Amino acid sequence: MAGFPPPPERRVTLENWDQPPFNRWTFQRVRQVIPTREVSRGVEPASALEAEPKDLDDVSVQSVRGGTATLAQFLDETFTDGFLVLHRGKVVIERYLNGMRPATLHLSQSVAKTVVGTVAGILIHRGTLDPDAPLTRYVPELERCGYGDARLCHLLDMASGVRFTEDYGHPDSDMTRLDVASGWRPNTRGDVPDSIYDLALTLPKECEHGTRFLYRSIETDVISWCMERATGLHLTELVGCELWAKLGAEWDACFTVDRAGTALSDGGFNATLRDYARFGQMIVQDGRFNGRQIVPAEWIAACRTGDNALFGEPHRSHFPNGAYRNKWWIKDVSTRVTMALGVFGQMIYVDPDAALVVVKLSTWPDYLNPEFNLDTVRAVEAVAVALNAGAG
Amino acid sequence: MAGFPPPPERRVTLENWDQPPFNRWTFQRVRQVIPTREVSRGVEPASALEAEPKDLDDVSVQSVRGGTATLAQFLDETFTDGFLVLHRGKVVIERYLNGMRPATLHLSQSVAKTVVGTVAGILIHRGTLDPDAPLTRYVPELERCGYGDARLCHLLDMASGVRFTEDYGHPDSDMTRLDVASGWRPNTRGDVPDSIYDLALTLPKECEHGTRFLYRSIETDVISWCMERATGLHLTELVGCELWAKLGAEWDACFTVDRAGTALSDGGFNATLRDYARFGQMIVQDGRFNGRQIVPAEWIAACRTGDNALFGEPHRSHFPNGAYRNKWWIKDVSTRVTMALGVFGQMIYVDPDAALVVVKLSTWPDYLNPEFNLDTVRAVEAVAVALNAGAG
Repeated sequence: MAGFPPPPERRVTLENWDQPPFNRWTFQRVRQVIPTREVSRGVEPASALEAEPKDLDDVSVQSVRGGTATLAQFLDETFTDGFLVLHRGKVVIERYLNGMRPATLHLSQSVAKTVVGTVAGILIHRGTLDPDAPLTRYVPELERCGYGDARLCHLLDMASGVRFTEDYGHPDSDMTRLDVASGWRPNTRGDVPDSIYDLALTLPKECEHGTRFLYRSIETDVISWCMERATGLHLTELVGCELWAKLGAEWDACFTVDRAGTALSDGGFNATLRDYARFGQMIVQDGRFNGRQIVPAEWIAACRTGDNALFGEPHRSHFPNGAYRNKWWIKDVSTRVTMALGVFGQMIYVDPDAALVVVKLSTWPDYLNPEFNLDTVRAVEAVAVALNAGAG
Repeated sequence: MAGFPPPPERRVTLENWDQPPFNRWTFQRVRQVIPTREVSRGVEPASALEAEPKDLDDVSVQSVRGGTATLAQFLDETFTDGFLVLHRGKVVIERYLNGMRPATLHLSQSVAKTVVGTVAGILIHRGTLDPDAPLTRYVPELERCGYGDARLCHLLDMASGVRFTEDYGHPDSDMTRLDVASGWRPNTRGDVPDSIYDLALTLPKECEHGTRFLYRSIETDVISWCMERATGLHLTELVGCELWAKLGAEWDACFTVDRAGTALSDGGFNATLRDYARFGQMIVQDGRFNGRQIVPAEWIAACRTGDNALFGEPHRSHFPNGAYRNKWWIKDVSTRVTMALGVFGQMIYVDPDAALVVVKLSTWPDYLNPEFNLDTVRAVEAVAVALNAGAG
């Protein structure tokens, strides 16, 4: 997008914006492409994030494909835009690449699901939402679709029996239809509803609820719908007052919104590197941060406890002992490590036992790249080892 | 836009967003409808705006149509969202209505022209731009259209000979085509270029340059194009570093951007009430504010000196001794009062001799309303009289 105006072949459009090479530019500038709604941090001072820089550039990262790189090389080779490591509450690495800066709001794709799930946890513990209630208690019109007899708990674990084909980039998948409905693509097809919630109402049931884990983005949007109806607040207001304000975030964040003003709560969240890190640190600290209990500790404990038996392919081949719970990926059910993950290379890695939070914001050329994903986990583990050995 | 989702008939769309009643909601939330690009205030502390509140609610405002209202009634009846009066550098009135708040970015329509023209003044005095140079020195491709032999000075006073029909809401006007090209309307017509600059390149010459004043929005966009080419900076960066950062603005501002990423510099600017007031106060103080000379005093002096002979209808019937100069409206060439004006009721009124700045942000039901406009000037004059009499 350089030039006044940029030449047509280098121009970001609603058709190409999240694809390479354009995503290297747009994930830091979503507001220039799509309408957004602010998540307010409120007016209180930002919470402190003390720095204790360590030089870990030369930490060795071994790829799952063989081959070894230094951490610095690894970050470069995996299209990193922002990388932050918090160890024992101190910022030991804070790195900006590809033009990103501390104030840059970076799209985090499905990390949004984890943020939204965390707000759901707060509301559940407050009694505002009942995880065992049918969704129709909150959104009666869901009766018309496959969600008619599902419960909130099913959606928190992506375990409903509703059909939603998550194939990225496939023209006929439900995911592509969601891209259109959410305003991430032009709606020129004529066969897709013009809003996220209207799309949700078209989805049929294909099996019993609660019998599987199947990754389906729309389930998070349906949770948000319930939260909005239960509270009378827009999702952006909920994330603002329940999380961003209480965390003492440094910057307002934002969600992309569809043509009905609905936030794309499954993937349209944009925030700064340090504010994602604050969120992660709050999780490490069992929900306590910035002088207050922001999320109930019981909720976070539950997020670390998943059922590996439901965890099918392709996830099982990457994380054989993994699970998915309350919008968190559990690396190994025998540990307490959880991850928020987003396509194109977004990760918040939270290990309470190592007092470690790692945030990596990236712009991979592909939606999914299992090698990059596993290598990122390896890089994090190598950093943890180096920190525990007193490196830097 | 209340409800999750709002009912279709109450939903803001790209077709209706700036029309009543939707504009009462959208002018405070443009980012939720249109892509935007940030104007950064930088990282320095905000400049002080000392308050010395006066109770002027009961000041009497006489309408041009007859009838009298109190100031409070007048603000309510003219669809005011924000109203701020600075007298001798102190905030004597700061009023938020219709849900607006101090942090709300409010669309100011053609006030943007004045902001952009002020940056042009800075660049001209720095020698970066030559007002007498042909536009093609900066943007060679303008050779292909009516601007091919125009000069920057013609555009600063809206005095080129280029055709641009400014009829708001008329489906065949150039203004409506600009709404489409700028991304303010869907581009479903097929006969309108998909960007502001491409539209400018279609405009023919219809008379000699420099022989008239004719209000045409696109002239400001062409100025911005020259500034961007001359500096290598995007308009949002120019307004940020030359004005918003130096003014010590409290909040980042933003411009709407078209599908090529070009800011709609003739009308897509959004900022807070207090930051518009800072801009006005800088003008009152002959360009000096926040401890520095931000705009050359000579430029501001020139902006207060217009040629009434060029001032035709309908403007002459409202301001018989008025003029238009460097993107400012001059109320009466025998005074030094200038105004930045925008459709639907936006105004920054600057009277250096009364040490008075008034900002009014509104959402009238109509693009133009001469009665409201003249009554606003009367309200300002009544406030000035009351302040000078020591009221409040």
